Amino acid sequence: MSDLHFTVGVIGLGLIGGSMALDLKRRGFASEVLGVEQDPVAAEAAKTIGLVDEVVPYEDCIRRADIVVVAVPVGAAVKLVPDILNRFAAMEASIPEKIVMDVCSTKSQICHATQYHPLRGRFVSTHPMAGTEYSGPWAAQPGLFDGRACIFANSEESSPKALKTIEELYAVLNMRPIYMNADQHDVHTAYVSHISHVTSFALALTVLDKEKDEKHIFDLASGGFSSTVRLAKSNADMWVPILSQNHDNILHVMDTYIDKMQQFRDAIATYDEAKIRELIQEANRIKKILR
Amino acid sequence: MSDLHFTVGVIGLGLIGGSMALDLKRRGFASEVLGVEQDPVAAEAAKTIGLVDEVVPYEDCIRRADIVVVAVPVGAAVKLVPDILNRFAAMEASIPEKIVMDVCSTKSQICHATQYHPLRGRFVSTHPMAGTEYSGPWAAQPGLFDGRACIFANSEESSPKALKTIEELYAVLNMRPIYMNADQHDVHTAYVSHISHVTSFALALTVLDKEKDEKHIFDLASGGFSSTVRLAKSNADMWVPILSQNHDNILHVMDTYIDKMQQFRDAIATYDEAKIRELIQEANRIKKILR
Repeated sequence: MSDLHFTVGVIGLGLIGGSMALDLKRRGFASEVLGVEQDPVAAEAAKTIGLVDEVVPYEDCIRRADIVVVAVPVGAAVKLVPDILNRFAAMEASIPEKIVMDVCSTKSQICHATQYHPLRGRFVSTHPMAGTEYSGPWAAQPGLFDGRACIFANSEESSPKALKTIEELYAVLNMRPIYMNADQHDVHTAYVSHISHVTSFALALTVLDKEKDEKHIFDLASGGFSSTVRLAKSNADMWVPILSQNHDNILHVMDTYIDKMQQFRDAIATYDEAKIRELIQEANRIKKILR
Repeated sequence: MSDLHFTVGVIGLGLIGGSMALDLKRRGFASEVLGVEQDPVAAEAAKTIGLVDEVVPYEDCIRRADIVVVAVPVGAAVKLVPDILNRFAAMEASIPEKIVMDVCSTKSQICHATQYHPLRGRFVSTHPMAGTEYSGPWAAQPGLFDGRACIFANSEESSPKALKTIEELYAVLNMRPIYMNADQHDVHTAYVSHISHVTSFALALTVLDKEKDEKHIFDLASGGFSSTVRLAKSNADMWVPILSQNHDNILHVMDTYIDKMQQFRDAIATYDEAKIRELIQEANRIKKILR
């Protein structure tokens, strides 16, 4: 494999996998991008759009790619990564130094599932913190990752050489690396990502309930509502395994959240304007932190 | 008062009052804009920015303006509008046909508080559905209202002439009029505006709680979190009276919302992936409604 001219195999040609395929090729990191896509409609679309050079069977991808990017929902990824490491082991004598990386939104289970694999060093576990509420190859876009943060989880378990190659890959995508323990990552993302999705889903469900008898309610939906409910468009295939895998953390955050809602409810129910004001002003502190 | 060249008096030079002052003058609807602002810093800023031609005392504004726009938080507006109608009545012999309108986010209380006033016809109660999460004269911006919806509440209680003048005012602001009963307005906005603010406040409080012991949690905040939490920057002076005045509706919506969160919590707690999927896919229906 020639320096910075890798054959990259992307398994899962959705928003993340597809966008990564686009930029790695355009920016010269990959000399060739192979794609693997189970869904025949998505596979055909990826070809038509031109996200990859070739859509190939899974086994061919593992055999031909220098770097395999696993970009499927985390429930499937957690089984796929050990399987890929096993296949690397079987090929080891003839083709050394292949790398597999995942791009999933939860990191504990996938890191635990690979922890004691003899080829653990060839696996680099990452979470590029970029995306939109849309999914599928048609949602892929160039520049999606530019300027955003990318988490490297348990990077000390990867071999220095594999880690360096994947750091270069993300440098090409203009991502800012953050190194973090996998378990810690899952606590943090429960707070700054997963709970936002659940609150949006619940908001959509609440308003859709009402809409059954009020046809024109959405005439009044303003920018505020759209922005709060945006994440409720997110795909179930992606989010069911995230919420399921990050079970303990997300429940803990949801309990805190439900408690805060209940405090608001009680203050409003008792016309306690001083308490409502106190809660809002405390919440306003978010201004100083997010710009 | 010459046709479409009114003296407009704006009471409350915040985001809404200030933005309205700007466009009514620029677009020629107002020949002169007077401002009333209790807060001396905001008053000085409004002068410096040039939102109005003149900042004047309240009494002068009522006396000189053809149209008085009440753009203060709804807790104050509900007292101010009847007072202004009383002052109109006292001047009636010498200066007829003045109009007062409000731009508040809840409509029931203010419409009930003026319902039996002898000059009720001179009052036009509106809710321009535009805004940002920022407040104060420094948040005012031209074009804020363009293309958005404006609710006229209980417009049959306004005189046809006063209503027509205010319809012209909003036509100049490029707003799309929607006519609605005040009580119905408050039900709808509880669903598509007020609950979004409460869920954002609660989200900010939840994450800020965690942040006390996790300094770097916000490094991970991505676009999804920012958009969901954006409304938590909203001003307490505006939102305390809204949540307090729209008490019954907002409690009803919050109860539905807390129930939906609880359904999610139970599904996650019991690893019931089929139920999590069902809830997410039901929430996804919001895609068809909001584009």
